[in-house]
Amino acid sequence: MTNIHAPEVLISEVGPRDGLQSVKATMPTADKLRWIDALAAAGLREIEVASFVPAQLLPQMADAAQVVQHALRHTGVRVMALVPNLRGAQAALQAGAQKLTLPVSASPAHSMANVRKTPEAMVEEVKAVLRLRDEMAPGVPVEVGMSTAFGCTLQGLVPEDDVLRLAVLLAEAGVDEIGLSDTTGMGNPAQVSRLFKRMFQEIGPLTGAAHLHNTRGLGLANGLAAYEAGVRTFDSSLGGLGGCPYAPGASGNVVTEDLVVMFEAMGVSTGVDLHKLMAARAPLKAGLPGEPLYGMTPEAGLPKGWV
Amino acid sequence: MTNIHAPEVLISEVGPRDGLQSVKATMPTADKLRWIDALAAAGLREIEVASFVPAQLLPQMADAAQVVQHALRHTGVRVMALVPNLRGAQAALQAGAQKLTLPVSASPAHSMANVRKTPEAMVEEVKAVLRLRDEMAPGVPVEVGMSTAFGCTLQGLVPEDDVLRLAVLLAEAGVDEIGLSDTTGMGNPAQVSRLFKRMFQEIGPLTGAAHLHNTRGLGLANGLAAYEAGVRTFDSSLGGLGGCPYAPGASGNVVTEDLVVMFEAMGVSTGVDLHKLMAARAPLKAGLPGEPLYGMTPEAGLPKGWV
Repeated sequence: MTNIHAPEVLISEVGPRDGLQSVKATMPTADKLRWIDALAAAGLREIEVASFVPAQLLPQMADAAQVVQHALRHTGVRVMALVPNLRGAQAALQAGAQKLTLPVSASPAHSMANVRKTPEAMVEEVKAVLRLRDEMAPGVPVEVGMSTAFGCTLQGLVPEDDVLRLAVLLAEAGVDEIGLSDTTGMGNPAQVSRLFKRMFQEIGPLTGAAHLHNTRGLGLANGLAAYEAGVRTFDSSLGGLGGCPYAPGASGNVVTEDLVVMFEAMGVSTGVDLHKLMAARAPLKAGLPGEPLYGMTPEAGLPKGWV
Repeated sequence: MTNIHAPEVLISEVGPRDGLQSVKATMPTADKLRWIDALAAAGLREIEVASFVPAQLLPQMADAAQVVQHALRHTGVRVMALVPNLRGAQAALQAGAQKLTLPVSASPAHSMANVRKTPEAMVEEVKAVLRLRDEMAPGVPVEVGMSTAFGCTLQGLVPEDDVLRLAVLLAEAGVDEIGLSDTTGMGNPAQVSRLFKRMFQEIGPLTGAAHLHNTRGLGLANGLAAYEAGVRTFDSSLGGLGGCPYAPGASGNVVTEDLVVMFEAMGVSTGVDLHKLMAARAPLKAGLPGEPLYGMTPEAGLPKGWV
């Protein structure tokens, strides 16, 4: 059933970064590398492989540079790294990252709690990263994933006008892609559709990925709404990795396996081989024994006759 | 967040019938009655409470008449029963069922395996049920849920023209509502949208419920597609009950809890109180100890501030 024409959507696998950042156990580097190899073999064309944060804050990411350097061997994969600030960006570019992504919160409350900066101060940080990029690696795209764009557990409602205003500021700053993240899983399809349509109106082709969580099971429905609104890049993580250890399932990313099934069954080509994608669960499980993984497709098995 | 205006969609709870029919353990009658009471208290306005099949074939449904009679005390609830044939319809009407639903397969292979009749022979059975209804209980609506409308594990692809042809035959026979069932969880949003739009074109307001399964996680996305195509009745089961015991998660219905969250968060009123809906899981768990239940909302808890 895998569609053989050119991929129409980009599945951006964020498990090695967003997923791992949410689990307690530290995954051994060798397992991370095997996992990334398996993801690349499955046809994923963009993988967020690491976060460049101080190792003392997040031991899980102490091997970020090594992981980036390894991933670069996969010529069909764009190797992406999350960087929270200028220092992280410098380290990521030095390691050879091919795309940077910065989180900027739409909610001031979340922004202060997360990075101790207002959203406006983060825009200044993004500008500094863009200047650095222009010096160090002019061709490397810089993306912003706008956190809490659909609601914030600290602030509550996030006004849609705030999201759009911030998006315009970031576009004016020169950011290459601006995506919207449902960090807290509060988004619903009507809202996802509305906000992304406004994004396309305001910033056009700079509109980036839909980064959705499956907190209350709405992940794929929200993804469908984003697709219908024109979004063509979707963040997701293998096995929905990223669930909070204290509330299983509460915070996991959209499950890559189910997302690929949805698009391919709709006739929308992802470029991902579902059989090989399922096989990529083995190194993930090996590296994180006992960690709960999600996904209905892995439970049910592939659809009969899927090629 | 529950919308206080008149309900815009009808959530038809099928757990006591479709859910229970798929589990191995027999739920004690007293627990079934407590469960149905809790579902009614949560504001569900239509509940498929039982299946009128021979008790030796399905011991789970031996108490069908008693369950229907009990459920009738809930004046805000339409008490629905599944009947596979004329004999079942007679027993259901005698017990006081307020709506009958008959399964008619779009796939001849599934129809023969399930009821040993062709789809055309089932249309004749439906006609006999309609005549019986006209004699015994003229006001009682008769619905057909068209099984395997989106694909069949036995036959494979089910041509959309076959689905539409059968729908027209059933409409001409005088059926009150004709819904489409994704019995095998093979449906995708593009197909769900296309087929329901054709249903509305061909049989207009006789178009009935979307009966969706969550086999590969697409249940809510398919529900969203059906809603956008104009469907306003959605079958679902509390806790996604109905998973195959040999492949957990493989065949469960759409999870009522998550479906209600999706619609209410979108501003589409369901009339269901989500707090009370969550409370209705207790009698279900008590009556089926050890049975796996699904649903991301129960794992994550209600959204903050949900009223």
